[in-house]
Amino acid sequence: MSRTDVPDYSTENCSIAASLALLGEKWTLLVLRDAFNGVRRFEDMYQRIGAPRQVLSARLSRLVEEGVLRRVPYREPGQRQRDEYRLTQKGLDLYPVLVALMHWGDKWAAAPDGPAVTLHHRDCGADVGLALRCADGHQLADAREVTPRPGPGARRIAG
Amino acid sequence: MSRTDVPDYSTENCSIAASLALLGEKWTLLVLRDAFNGVRRFEDMYQRIGAPRQVLSARLSRLVEEGVLRRVPYREPGQRQRDEYRLTQKGLDLYPVLVALMHWGDKWAAAPDGPAVTLHHRDCGADVGLALRCADGHQLADAREVTPRPGPGARRIAG
Repeated sequence: MSRTDVPDYSTENCSIAASLALLGEKWTLLVLRDAFNGVRRFEDMYQRIGAPRQVLSARLSRLVEEGVLRRVPYREPGQRQRDEYRLTQKGLDLYPVLVALMHWGDKWAAAPDGPAVTLHHRDCGADVGLALRCADGHQLADAREVTPRPGPGARRIAG
Repeated sequence: MSRTDVPDYSTENCSIAASLALLGEKWTLLVLRDAFNGVRRFEDMYQRIGAPRQVLSARLSRLVEEGVLRRVPYREPGQRQRDEYRLTQKGLDLYPVLVALMHWGDKWAAAPDGPAVTLHHRDCGADVGLALRCADGHQLADAREVTPRPGPGARRIAG
């Protein structure tokens, strides 16, 4: 149990696991995809995502509880008041997760006719992507140029 | 159904949904987290991830089938030959997904004593992060500076 190539720090306070406890629920990331595309109303999400109504409703409620979405009331003429769903700052901060999933899918799971959606800088129109960079300004090609270190919250595995 | 703020393109060939069809399975992203941390053997993953053995085994097999991991045989003295799991290029390309999940968790779901792991540039030691950039070299602050456009594979919704 002490091979040098296996990290001897606990995974119990892993930030990836903490994120997945919320985001790993089926449909949740598709709800967020829609939110980033300006889809804010239950009926529109329901038609686009294809989740059962009760499940979609539960996922939206969880995202509101967790502070990722907030409800904003609206009323169409002649109808009762309903809520639409908008991203909070906590939700907006998830954008890199969605862009990373999208670009991986574009490259490795794309339809033969190419991506359904492309992302562009609002100001100049150029393609948008994620770059792995360090605080000293170096651009990194991939994971092999990154080394993980125990952070302030690291807990050594007992034994 | 034709409000101008809701995209009128089909989501059926969405790259995010395509990625989640594989990555959205519970435990799969934690298997990949371990792979990026150099954890390659079933027993080590089993102890770190906490998934039932049969489930972990099924997730690993699926990742091999999909070409995200590959099996490499090894043999410890006095034991039968076993396989370890290594990332392929398709797997290595998932690194931004994991970094994005990790940094979101660090910010919004972190333990009070701070992140368990920090990422550093192997050459200079500086902190590593993901930056949203456009092909013309502009750094973007967040999703509000990005506009999605229908790509070559976009399919307009019938009706």
